[in-house]
Amino acid sequence: MKKKSNVTLKEIAKILGYSISTVSRALRDHVDISAETKAIVEQKAKELNYMPNMFAQGFRSSRMHIIGVVVPKLSHYFTSTMIEGILDYAETKGYRVIVSESKNSVEKQNQMLNTMLQFNVDGILLSMTRKTANVQDILNILDRKPLVLFDKVMSKIPCTQIIIDGKQAAYNAIEHLINIGKRRIAIFKETENSFNSEQRFEGYLKALKDYNIPIDEKLIFSTEDISLEKGEQLAQIAITLKERPDAIFAITDSCAIGAIKILNKNKIKIPEEIAVVGFSNSAHSTIIEPNLSTINQPGHLIGKTALKYLIEEIETDNNNDFQSSKTVEIKSSLIVRDSSFIV
Amino acid sequence: MKKKSNVTLKEIAKILGYSISTVSRALRDHVDISAETKAIVEQKAKELNYMPNMFAQGFRSSRMHIIGVVVPKLSHYFTSTMIEGILDYAETKGYRVIVSESKNSVEKQNQMLNTMLQFNVDGILLSMTRKTANVQDILNILDRKPLVLFDKVMSKIPCTQIIIDGKQAAYNAIEHLINIGKRRIAIFKETENSFNSEQRFEGYLKALKDYNIPIDEKLIFSTEDISLEKGEQLAQIAITLKERPDAIFAITDSCAIGAIKILNKNKIKIPEEIAVVGFSNSAHSTIIEPNLSTINQPGHLIGKTALKYLIEEIETDNNNDFQSSKTVEIKSSLIVRDSSFIV
Repeated sequence: MKKKSNVTLKEIAKILGYSISTVSRALRDHVDISAETKAIVEQKAKELNYMPNMFAQGFRSSRMHIIGVVVPKLSHYFTSTMIEGILDYAETKGYRVIVSESKNSVEKQNQMLNTMLQFNVDGILLSMTRKTANVQDILNILDRKPLVLFDKVMSKIPCTQIIIDGKQAAYNAIEHLINIGKRRIAIFKETENSFNSEQRFEGYLKALKDYNIPIDEKLIFSTEDISLEKGEQLAQIAITLKERPDAIFAITDSCAIGAIKILNKNKIKIPEEIAVVGFSNSAHSTIIEPNLSTINQPGHLIGKTALKYLIEEIETDNNNDFQSSKTVEIKSSLIVRDSSFIV
Repeated sequence: MKKKSNVTLKEIAKILGYSISTVSRALRDHVDISAETKAIVEQKAKELNYMPNMFAQGFRSSRMHIIGVVVPKLSHYFTSTMIEGILDYAETKGYRVIVSESKNSVEKQNQMLNTMLQFNVDGILLSMTRKTANVQDILNILDRKPLVLFDKVMSKIPCTQIIIDGKQAAYNAIEHLINIGKRRIAIFKETENSFNSEQRFEGYLKALKDYNIPIDEKLIFSTEDISLEKGEQLAQIAITLKERPDAIFAITDSCAIGAIKILNKNKIKIPEEIAVVGFSNSAHSTIIEPNLSTINQPGHLIGKTALKYLIEEIETDNNNDFQSSKTVEIKSSLIVRDSSFIV
């Protein structure tokens, strides 16, 4: 499809009988140009629908006021709350945001990171795909652009990282289950090299240890690509164990909801026979019956905080990257609802 | 933060003792350059981590294989399914996608459309904000770039538009409610200038008319920013009517789920006393009890179809815009679940 191309500075200059430099400086509100000339040039530019060419600007100035965001999966509920936090904060700071998805593929992640680099965004917010084993490509990006990791991170990358206190959050969930009298507490977690899953598993193990409850390997369920369906499958296995669990801690709400569906179907009383706690306080958690106890992850705050640190980096002109990079833990909280409420 | 700048063609040329033009042509796999020279240049470029500058490329070639997407709200579930459809299809066609949000603001919508233009994307997919009254800005974009509207559209914009058959879908929902014996059918819809809401309302009115059921203004509920909470509020009003409805058709699932929550709370039997039908087949619809009857909107297919038409436009070199633009209706289907299932 053939489309009109933008009117250029040269064309405006020709029409008005000014030099290109005068037109350019007038549009950039340069002090050397009189208010009258500026008004004339602006009027003409508006009339001709002049659009400043960002590619050309990209050469001259390193600041575009645009942030690039790369996440594993856009349609994931918690991810979208973090993106909302980024978008809301960006608006208050006068930055525009473009978002892209890695589809949990390392190749696509690198491709999108390079796209962001080529667009000359001012900085990048990255939530990593689970499978990122080789981080050289990310280190290369980090060499060139301010980059902040959020939610799905990897501690060996030397940059600011915004995470939630997953270990403490899981610890609190397990402690709560112990306090309501549960002793055979199952965990539904991910198999793969997932930072978040490992953190939560550590919290689970620590709580059991602190309360002198022996670890039972049969109660540790691992699955790839944790989901509602996987929650159903694992719960189906769990309830047929000879010594079945009296509680299930699932590291995502979807997985916990899958478990509740199977328990409901099998008329197993929640929480009396088996209590359930999820993770993330998704919208689903108050729609399922019984309402799901869960960890409230402040996605909006995580997104906002990640962008806050990124903008600080962008707007601070120093070379002292390593010293300034830090890991920020955002506090989550346990919300007790009917799925684990026993008086 | 100071970052390394990219190595330039000039620097590579200097190091290798070639001309810039040779290096440039070698990297673009030009026929005039020998395979040996190409290998040397590529090796050095790789070694120095050379990154082709897209801004410079943007000047030369009009094809970047990048699509820009602008939607009112990224975190909306149905929107995210459409974006998944766009992303999946883009991958098969070798296009990259960047997504942005208008936050349902006309100003921000224009800002993001202009950002896409300035990034020199190959084409734009737009789902419009509700409040777009003045379409001149969109017409200006359309003058310059291939643009396809999807889901939230406006018929007076002369471009290809991908919509679902909202009127027919709503008609089918109302007909189904009539078939199970309902006569006082309420609708929960939007007040504002929303294309989708108006389409569904038309289907509601037509079905009642075709079945000779008089319109009762008291059963037509309109609200701004339709949501779960608004569904609760409207249901609360509906059940206190002197002649209360025997069915509720809500134009979004969230709103329908809000209604179900209030009916459950008030121990009103669903569907016997009041049946409920929603719209969009969100993940929530099978989590709420009773499971929600709804219209399955094929979001993935809408996204894919929108991109398919956009790529066709991008890759077809003709000026005959108006003739080629069309409105494509994607078929939806009614899914009957417990919230309206009466034998």
